[in-house]
Amino acid sequence: MINVTVWNENRHEQKNPVVREIYPNGIHGVIAQFLMEDGLEVKTATLDEAEHGLTEEVLEATDVLIWWGHLAHDEVTDTVVERVKQRVLDGMGLIVLHSGHFSKIFKTLMGTSCDLKWREADEKERIWVVDPSHPIVEGIGEYIELDKEEMYGEHFDIPTPNELIMVSWFEGGEVFRSGCTYSRGNGKVFYFRPGHETYPTYHQPDVQRVITNAVHWARPAGRQRPVYGNAQPLEVIKDKDNH
Amino acid sequence: MINVTVWNENRHEQKNPVVREIYPNGIHGVIAQFLMEDGLEVKTATLDEAEHGLTEEVLEATDVLIWWGHLAHDEVTDTVVERVKQRVLDGMGLIVLHSGHFSKIFKTLMGTSCDLKWREADEKERIWVVDPSHPIVEGIGEYIELDKEEMYGEHFDIPTPNELIMVSWFEGGEVFRSGCTYSRGNGKVFYFRPGHETYPTYHQPDVQRVITNAVHWARPAGRQRPVYGNAQPLEVIKDKDNH
Amino acid sequence: MINVTVWNENRHEQKNPVVREIYPNGIHGVIAQFLMEDGLEVKTATLDEAEHGLTEEVLEATDVLIWWGHLAHDEVTDTVVERVKQRVLDGMGLIVLHSGHFSKIFKTLMGTSCDLKWREADEKERIWVVDPSHPIVEGIGEYIELDKEEMYGEHFDIPTPNELIMVSWFEGGEVFRSGCTYSRGNGKVFYFRPGHETYPTYHQPDVQRVITNAVHWARPAGRQRPVYGNAQPLEVIKDKDNH
Amino acid sequence: MINVTVWNENRHEQKNPVVREIYPNGIHGVIAQFLMEDGLEVKTATLDEAEHGLTEEVLEATDVLIWWGHLAHDEVTDTVVERVKQRVLDGMGLIVLHSGHFSKIFKTLMGTSCDLKWREADEKERIWVVDPSHPIVEGIGEYIELDKEEMYGEHFDIPTPNELIMVSWFEGGEVFRSGCTYSRGNGKVFYFRPGHETYPTYHQPDVQRVITNAVHWARPAGRQRPVYGNAQPLEVIKDKDNH
Repeated sequence: MINVTVWNENRHEQKNPVVREIYPNGIHGVIAQFLMEDGLEVKTATLDEAEHGLTEEVLEATDVLIWWGHLAHDEVTDTVVERVKQRVLDGMGLIVLHSGHFSKIFKTLMGTSCDLKWREADEKERIWVVDPSHPIVEGIGEYIELDKEEMYGEHFDIPTPNELIMVSWFEGGEVFRSGCTYSRGNGKVFYFRPGHETYPTYHQPDVQRVITNAVHWARPAGRQRPVYGNAQPLEVIKDKDNH
Repeated sequence: MINVTVWNENRHEQKNPVVREIYPNGIHGVIAQFLMEDGLEVKTATLDEAEHGLTEEVLEATDVLIWWGHLAHDEVTDTVVERVKQRVLDGMGLIVLHSGHFSKIFKTLMGTSCDLKWREADEKERIWVVDPSHPIVEGIGEYIELDKEEMYGEHFDIPTPNELIMVSWFEGGEVFRSGCTYSRGNGKVFYFRPGHETYPTYHQPDVQRVITNAVHWARPAGRQRPVYGNAQPLEVIKDKDNH
Repeated sequence: MINVTVWNENRHEQKNPVVREIYPNGIHGVIAQFLMEDGLEVKTATLDEAEHGLTEEVLEATDVLIWWGHLAHDEVTDTVVERVKQRVLDGMGLIVLHSGHFSKIFKTLMGTSCDLKWREADEKERIWVVDPSHPIVEGIGEYIELDKEEMYGEHFDIPTPNELIMVSWFEGGEVFRSGCTYSRGNGKVFYFRPGHETYPTYHQPDVQRVITNAVHWARPAGRQRPVYGNAQPLEVIKDKDNH
Repeated sequence: MINVTVWNENRHEQKNPVVREIYPNGIHGVIAQFLMEDGLEVKTATLDEAEHGLTEEVLEATDVLIWWGHLAHDEVTDTVVERVKQRVLDGMGLIVLHSGHFSKIFKTLMGTSCDLKWREADEKERIWVVDPSHPIVEGIGEYIELDKEEMYGEHFDIPTPNELIMVSWFEGGEVFRSGCTYSRGNGKVFYFRPGHETYPTYHQPDVQRVITNAVHWARPAGRQRPVYGNAQPLEVIKDKDNH
């Protein structure tokens, strides 16, 4: 059993009828739906809930957290960001989607600006698989094609990924590292690029499959956490001043 | 369902009563036993069988192959080595144990000499986990301690691992990268250091747990294989001589 | 010409006669000395100077910054930490020594706790080279042996290094990833473990050689920085609603 | 002083007047020319010379070897391939260009098929820099644009690069990992994609700059090679049967 919490800023859906029409139950709603259909245990949380819906209790009960944000990164309190970070270091998986590249939680875990090029021009994106051995692309063909998406272009200012799984081609001439894994402490992190709010990207079966696969990949390894601090020797240390 | 084939050279067991006493059913026997107890579908194969027990049919039906060899690496035919390599590139997982570092299949997949320092001196090995987020160390403590093992020491002439999961400390003063992952084509490879034939290493529960975890990690991703060769364009290419 | 700034907290030297005897001109003094002998242009800066000696002008003129701190990480102002971080992302090399693992600048660039095991027990450390191709170990033998050092042990809570160059063996039974490289934005980062203040570690020729090599490796690549933000297309994007 | 040997198959130049017009002194000729202008010590060698111009003496005196081949990979003798491989493991840098992806030496060092998609269609390639900190892209802008090139597309069946420095966008819809580094033993390897024989790619200043930078990056680290085989203990090993 994997417990997933889908977190969404949920602001575009309130303000923009185009977004509301595509995602009547919110971006979190459609993501929660396809994850539940995979048999996962799924809850949702949004920015405007108390503590953004991410209390200690909620995080403690979460194996994998999915994050979508864009307009209101600054409204996420530092307290909650620090809480999520500690939970990731403790083992919780984190899947950061699209404009979440600029979220406080992603930037603090990466240590870089996470900046990039972008453009909204109804252009084609073709996401190529470059690591065919990876479980995150199970069931995915050579590429995922999205007829209209926002462009994100290199240089993407992230640390070198542990694993680079997908690279996007954009009609306007750019490329982008679109599927990247990291480990942070006991936790695993996956960044997945597509998902601009005005396109039906999260209704696309291959996009759903990647996110579902990533949840399985990101579940915590069941083990005791490492011990830090002052440590007694495990072997006898010679007295160097008397031999 | 994961189909595992445990391959063993099975020569020490024939020649050396010390080894036979520790592994009366062969090293492959004990490995097959604990993998079956995990619910995996397990077969064994050994050097002296026809085609070393690794026919096209056997490999085609194998999701993960485990490899133990030492005395007779040169007796493994190039035909079988090439067959195993193609099957790994096609997606089969490969787990190489201990002295398998010098097997033809490991060397050809690595592209390096795979050489190292070694010593048989009944010394203590302590295998430290350095990537606590990895599924291969699920259920494992901060380290695995083996009271007596053969020493393998750096420099270990392997390509940089995709993931370095464990590092060994040896009583005689050396260190070693003991748990290393690679991807090769569609397949995953894991090298795990311990397992000298004159010690009961494969009876150790933590060692068994690592190998069992590695089988689950190394199973093939279910997807179509990439297409290579001449490719038609997916987009219109401009005629550059007329614009 | 490479301009190096050696930054030292310089507190142990004020408080502890043992440290002062080993480093009469401070840890920064001895490091600056051997770097100057290599022909580098070297300045020093310490915590108690105005802005810790790390003004915008100083950092702008610094190609590679070396960092030693321990007692007073919290006294480094967030303003200076952010300034150093931006300069690293802009291309400045950063070499973090020993107890600098817990400095604000290292933790913010890593995104993890950077915690570890430690022990002061006059024990032997043997630092093994595991990447013999790397320029940082030019001129270094198979290992560097330090008769007495503080122990740092795994798990070291850092992101997976871009390159793991050295691994330490400790007499008391632990191992440690002692030489680790990272890239962050346009800048390169190197963490090097040894250097407890009560031992003459920075007088050791091999330790000096590694730090000197690392300065050369970490110098900024001379190029324009990437451009971020809204980007015009480089190719014509089709009007999808009319074809 | 860095000694470079530029190896070229030199067959297209003999057979195809289009290629001969672009490269009247051969592809090796133009590469040798711009490397010499950088102050490097450069020699050339070609397939039809005795031992392909790669005798023990030549390789022993070579710090960095550049490799261009296409039509006649199979004519390179296994003896010479093995000799080059041993010299790379011993420390010599190797830069493999374009269709060299299918050379025996590259395939044996990689351990994979090195296969890819390809197309000759006079299409545009734009090579994006994804690691701006790397010395190989010193002096290079955000991308290199080539008006007409052969397309190489993913999946490129290589091991995960140690460092991924450049990714290509192609007009026809594909992407490709175009600048990849590896270490093999004591040696460094760089694969660089562009350079189809019917285009003037190696006359392009940015392409020349990348190859020149790569030569500097790939020079051998000056140090003793590691020692392998049976090793005496560096520390006293306890007699476990009597304590």
